[in-house]
Amino acid sequence: MTQSPRPAVVLLSGGLDSATALAAARNDGFRCHALTVAYGQRHAAELDAARRVAAALGAAEHRVFPLDLRAFGGSALTADLDVPRDRSAEEMAAGIPITYVPARNTVFLALALAWAEVLGSFDIFLGVNAIDYSGYPDCRPEFVRAFEGLANVATRAGVEGRGRFRIHAPLIHLAKAEIIRLGRELGVDYAPTHSCYDPAPDGAACGRCDSCRLRREGFAAAGVADPTRYAGEGEGPAPR
Amino acid sequence: MTQSPRPAVVLLSGGLDSATALAAARNDGFRCHALTVAYGQRHAAELDAARRVAAALGAAEHRVFPLDLRAFGGSALTADLDVPRDRSAEEMAAGIPITYVPARNTVFLALALAWAEVLGSFDIFLGVNAIDYSGYPDCRPEFVRAFEGLANVATRAGVEGRGRFRIHAPLIHLAKAEIIRLGRELGVDYAPTHSCYDPAPDGAACGRCDSCRLRREGFAAAGVADPTRYAGEGEGPAPR
Repeated sequence: MTQSPRPAVVLLSGGLDSATALAAARNDGFRCHALTVAYGQRHAAELDAARRVAAALGAAEHRVFPLDLRAFGGSALTADLDVPRDRSAEEMAAGIPITYVPARNTVFLALALAWAEVLGSFDIFLGVNAIDYSGYPDCRPEFVRAFEGLANVATRAGVEGRGRFRIHAPLIHLAKAEIIRLGRELGVDYAPTHSCYDPAPDGAACGRCDSCRLRREGFAAAGVADPTRYAGEGEGPAPR
Repeated sequence: MTQSPRPAVVLLSGGLDSATALAAARNDGFRCHALTVAYGQRHAAELDAARRVAAALGAAEHRVFPLDLRAFGGSALTADLDVPRDRSAEEMAAGIPITYVPARNTVFLALALAWAEVLGSFDIFLGVNAIDYSGYPDCRPEFVRAFEGLANVATRAGVEGRGRFRIHAPLIHLAKAEIIRLGRELGVDYAPTHSCYDPAPDGAACGRCDSCRLRREGFAAAGVADPTRYAGEGEGPAPR
């Protein structure tokens, strides 16, 4: 008799990190329920990427949940503000940039927790990373631990002791190059993933925002060919 | 020179408790930004009640944020399940009922936190109560403390030390009758508030769900006339 796999909710943005987190969850033996929050980001290309990634990595289910954080504004990703470009590693390390979306991962994990409780799942995967990142407070281990503690007092499932919620952040201590190497081992095809904060109308990545720079340097450091199509570089692979 | 009042975000459902919490926030000198989450509850009458309460209690602003928790289901308030009726106090004390909405207050506080950070506010008010209540885990002091800790590690405002987030739950240790007496002292008119989980099509309260029973007994114990219009009791005051 085979046991049916335990369910997990995986937050999936369509980017490189969350695709790797989904592959890690699958590799841990979970049945993966992928959740993408359509929060009004300027880069709707993310949503298409998320759909392709969920299908490619065998998610049991993929839901896109609309939640328009533009109602609150306060970020270059949800309001009409310029995305910073061409920042050095030192500039990125100096503070939290304007692309920070207030309380974004708190909101995302709250939704994932709601769905997990309905599914009877105690495992939530989040592709945050506190090494090669933009300094967002809600990507750090302190945040992940605090949310895990909250989940276990906030829910019927936690309080009744049917299980203990775990927030899995398998990439949190990995450099970008290590994430890419892990993903390759787990069979991730990064071609459909999308990282750019400010893509061209045809979907090409800008190559200059923090997210593009971290991604590009990660592929270079990993010694893996970068499948991204960057604006002005006609030779990249066509989007699939 | 007068100082402009500090801003607070107040979660406002349109019920008796959150109306009292709004009055308490105003009484503490805050400029109140009221937030109502339209989460697909069966009782849309709540939203009208919230609008009337926000106006009556002088909120600086009132926003209704759409977030459809029916996408996840799992509760009598968000799915097609029967709301329990005529339960005794002992039955209510025996466990968490089917009207529990998975992770609801976690989701609501996450949204309030997002808005607070954009507003430059460090104060969030929540009308939860752990005495005369249905045993929901996310109405307890442990939950409120855990979310407060999370807020301070999850946000730029918290991490940069510009202030410390506080989750105010001024009613948490009050019995329903004490809440009603407090509200009366603070000038709350309870006529527009709405508590029923399962109102009649004309908006009359059922008088039999947990929420109606707690409300009705609260008015009786407080010695305050109950302004609620209950189904089948034609003599109640007309809705305004």
